[in-house]
Amino acid sequence: MKRMKATVSYDGTDFAGYQSQPNMRTVQSEIDKALVKLHKDPSVHSVASGRTDSGVHALGQVIHFDTPLDLGNRWRMALNVLLPKDVRVVEVEEAAADFHARYSAAGKTYQYRWTYNEVQSPFERNFAVHLGRWDPDIERMRKAAQHLIGTHDFTSFCSAKTATSNKVRTIRKLTLEKQGDHLLLEVEGDGFLYNMVRTIAGVLLAVGIGWDEPEDVKRILDTKDRKSAGKTAPAHGLYLLEVTY
Amino acid sequence: MKRMKATVSYDGTDFAGYQSQPNMRTVQSEIDKALVKLHKDPSVHSVASGRTDSGVHALGQVIHFDTPLDLGNRWRMALNVLLPKDVRVVEVEEAAADFHARYSAAGKTYQYRWTYNEVQSPFERNFAVHLGRWDPDIERMRKAAQHLIGTHDFTSFCSAKTATSNKVRTIRKLTLEKQGDHLLLEVEGDGFLYNMVRTIAGVLLAVGIGWDEPEDVKRILDTKDRKSAGKTAPAHGLYLLEVTY
Repeated sequence: MKRMKATVSYDGTDFAGYQSQPNMRTVQSEIDKALVKLHKDPSVHSVASGRTDSGVHALGQVIHFDTPLDLGNRWRMALNVLLPKDVRVVEVEEAAADFHARYSAAGKTYQYRWTYNEVQSPFERNFAVHLGRWDPDIERMRKAAQHLIGTHDFTSFCSAKTATSNKVRTIRKLTLEKQGDHLLLEVEGDGFLYNMVRTIAGVLLAVGIGWDEPEDVKRILDTKDRKSAGKTAPAHGLYLLEVTY
Repeated sequence: MKRMKATVSYDGTDFAGYQSQPNMRTVQSEIDKALVKLHKDPSVHSVASGRTDSGVHALGQVIHFDTPLDLGNRWRMALNVLLPKDVRVVEVEEAAADFHARYSAAGKTYQYRWTYNEVQSPFERNFAVHLGRWDPDIERMRKAAQHLIGTHDFTSFCSAKTATSNKVRTIRKLTLEKQGDHLLLEVEGDGFLYNMVRTIAGVLLAVGIGWDEPEDVKRILDTKDRKSAGKTAPAHGLYLLEVTY
């Protein structure tokens, strides 16, 4: 048996999220179906670095699976032939026997995308959140973001449904850049709680458009109460860019 | 009554083409539904510059409709609120009483998009045709395109189902450019026959990858037989960019 590590990209639009659920089209169920077909073995399955919600996209999700097959450099093609076109395997390599897509992860990078256009392009409707009449002040957002960088208890920034008891996480980097018609938020950390990046995006946008002050972000963190953070930004602006090990 | 001219953009993926058909989701039926709702009058309808096939996209389709309403600069918003997000009205203006989206058209510009990436991005699957292992020789394609520029009988380049008897059309401009991961073909002419741009794309690609010689394009034109032109390129690479009047 060999342990394989694969990097996977998907358009989350037509999926009920990453994780397998009965009677739902999910990314994991499509990947596991392809693995089962390839191995002619119904027990083969994959483990991912973590789940993503319905509508959330990925450029660099990472999975692992165990296999008796030796396909050399044909792994990627063999899987892509069996997968639907909204999931693509970007890379496959052999990993150490103790590599684990979730537990070995050292960090993750997410991107959140907004668009500026007066009328949102129909081609962007599932891929970036339309700012409409808003023109957020990026300098204010950057100032607000400074309060999030570092190690904090992110209770206020995760769904109240989060089961994890330890809500301390470290954000290593958080950048905001205007790029053409897009406003891009990129955030790198050791790990993220459920809805954490979407809550950060919502809070920073509220500062950018003047509903909150940059200093409010510190106050929101301190309350350790999800209710203080306001709205979660929509799923379709979010991309899992990279998982590092 | 006023005659209004509107520019419309749509993602053709989830439509059975532009033109209304019973029990099918088409761009025209969505636009007409929005017009009927806005006017509270079931007889209101739009006329487009021409139809596009299932899967074909538009950045600048043009339509006209007659209305007793005076919405000033609120036309665009009023229609976009009623339209699904894969159709967007980009611009609305009052036109001359004798303006006709189809018969007044002086020319059209189409774009055809291919992508080079080894693995096609899942985000591109409906928006550009994947070249896979092919790396077409653009200079050969440009040389071949020279035979198409000007006024010709394009019988070989339209669907055998084309009803129009006059198959003479003028191509004013045809360019091929590599742009990032994309190969873009742009073609401007006085009008295009059914499947004409997709047939041109297929023929030029065949030259680019060495299946045909640039000079074969002249021979294909001369035969005046659709069978000599080979495969029509897939619909999802095609965009109606602009209609000029």
